[in-house]
Amino acid sequence: MKLATLTNGSRDGQLVVVSRDLALAHHAAGIAARLQTALDDWNFFSPQLEDLYQTLNEGRARHAFTFDPKRAMAPLPRAYQWADGSAYVNHVELVRKARGAEMPESFWTDPLMYQGGSDDLLGPHADIVCPSEEHGIDFEAEVAVITGDVPMGSKPKTIGQRIRLLMLVNDVSLRNLIPAELAKGFGFFQSKPATAFSPVAITPDELGDAWRDGKVHRRLTVHWNGNKVGEPNAGDDMTFSFAQLIAHVAKTRNVRAGSIIGSGTVSNTDRSRGYCCIAEKRSLEMIEHGAARTPFMKYGDQVRIEMFDDAGRSIFGAIEQTVAPLQET
Amino acid sequence: MKLATLTNGSRDGQLVVVSRDLALAHHAAGIAARLQTALDDWNFFSPQLEDLYQTLNEGRARHAFTFDPKRAMAPLPRAYQWADGSAYVNHVELVRKARGAEMPESFWTDPLMYQGGSDDLLGPHADIVCPSEEHGIDFEAEVAVITGDVPMGSKPKTIGQRIRLLMLVNDVSLRNLIPAELAKGFGFFQSKPATAFSPVAITPDELGDAWRDGKVHRRLTVHWNGNKVGEPNAGDDMTFSFAQLIAHVAKTRNVRAGSIIGSGTVSNTDRSRGYCCIAEKRSLEMIEHGAARTPFMKYGDQVRIEMFDDAGRSIFGAIEQTVAPLQET
Repeated sequence: MKLATLTNGSRDGQLVVVSRDLALAHHAAGIAARLQTALDDWNFFSPQLEDLYQTLNEGRARHAFTFDPKRAMAPLPRAYQWADGSAYVNHVELVRKARGAEMPESFWTDPLMYQGGSDDLLGPHADIVCPSEEHGIDFEAEVAVITGDVPMGSKPKTIGQRIRLLMLVNDVSLRNLIPAELAKGFGFFQSKPATAFSPVAITPDELGDAWRDGKVHRRLTVHWNGNKVGEPNAGDDMTFSFAQLIAHVAKTRNVRAGSIIGSGTVSNTDRSRGYCCIAEKRSLEMIEHGAARTPFMKYGDQVRIEMFDDAGRSIFGAIEQTVAPLQET
Repeated sequence: MKLATLTNGSRDGQLVVVSRDLALAHHAAGIAARLQTALDDWNFFSPQLEDLYQTLNEGRARHAFTFDPKRAMAPLPRAYQWADGSAYVNHVELVRKARGAEMPESFWTDPLMYQGGSDDLLGPHADIVCPSEEHGIDFEAEVAVITGDVPMGSKPKTIGQRIRLLMLVNDVSLRNLIPAELAKGFGFFQSKPATAFSPVAITPDELGDAWRDGKVHRRLTVHWNGNKVGEPNAGDDMTFSFAQLIAHVAKTRNVRAGSIIGSGTVSNTDRSRGYCCIAEKRSLEMIEHGAARTPFMKYGDQVRIEMFDDAGRSIFGAIEQTVAPLQET
């Protein structure tokens, strides 16, 4: 099943079911008006949404309309939790190596995660608004899941069935704010502006065999200003599965329905597959040439993030954002 | 105006207006069923809630009932943002001094904040459930505000009017998990379990002159197992006002209605006023005796956090929590 949230002037938008080919949509208001409502009582609402999805795919839905991803908000325009992992540990190791720091061996067994802001999540076509180009504006292409309720202390093997939906993510980072912020000791804050999400969220079964071991075994395609810069496989080199990441969050607290848990920047050790964030490219340049050569994003720069099936059809629709200055009010 | 959320079996509970003396409550369902709904359109809903509040205080509300803080959930049982500052910089300096670390001078001008989990916020009487006593269970008594919408780049002087409500907070910390977690570089995560809030949230006008310069100029009273351990004035030694803390959050992103922003552990340089977290007491002991003497909380330990007006009446009601083990399911 594929779900989206369309803008309707409200903070939470309007839940719609989207056809598998992303061509058509149908209001889900007769079932649940908002995605969070469906997540709050998933076992009750999801079968009804699945029925509508089937009807829509079969061309029998009577009030179907063209799905326009430009009208899509984030599937959850605001969420009660956004926690992002760094599950591609080779990426973490590379970035640290570039700045001459060694990565602790424990990073291979103990997930690195940060708590992000979730009150203002962006739709796939929203501008990346940034007060200064000097902040070092970077994209980070990722995969994320939306969870059901996960009680404190849950083990990974029981968590798989609590994963409700999958999305693509652009976890925008302001790289030049990060060193000073991390030096303060409390983690990212101003260096993590609003995060953007794919037009649709999908249930794991949509991926077929490509969803296994709590990982998405498909390539994530990233274009920057029209040039393909990355196409790593999100299932390769992912040290921690989504179930393991969620178990990390649930170690000392309950995780409630509608929590979004991210994979961290997708990265493969096979460097021919390119990069999902500029910081990775710059790290490779630092190691090879002693200095970074690729600049960060400028106002007007565009990034496009998507994932395709074997037949080349877009699974989630595309995140397609442009960097823009903050308009003083 | 004083507002509370009563448990009714739903995730978001039932919004009620509470009388100034905390004796009576009245359902606000005819106005707004949930606090977040009121915050989403505050200028529309708050005058109606104020009218009901006045009627209730005058003893003219026809369906008033006894307010039982044991039935109170957190005013926002789940929120789209919980960001906590460390506005009492002398506390930060003390804790660092105790572990032999120097505090950067910039901490006096650049607020230290962390992003907390907000999907599972606890009511004032909820147990502090912790999987192990060895985690170093500590309370942190704080003040917090709930904001309206604050656009990116807003300056402190325009932010004061965006502060909708005030609450007391117990920002529970697992001290023994913090060093390893901060060493990883991404900030707190497992070391910050669910946060608890006072029975009622109040509008700033309830404080009269005690609300000025974006600070709460009243003493915060903390009892641990029945012994008063702290009574610092939350208005003294607060280096950053709430408006300054919110401006810090809004530097690179929009802050949306219903965001909760905390002060950090209240702490006065006058040590005779005691402590609002055990870590502060232990830091003083380390500096004086070379080792901490006061242990952290054990299962069964109780903490009580409240604030009184000049006549000794409780303003927010009390946070009153007991530490309990995690029941394996």
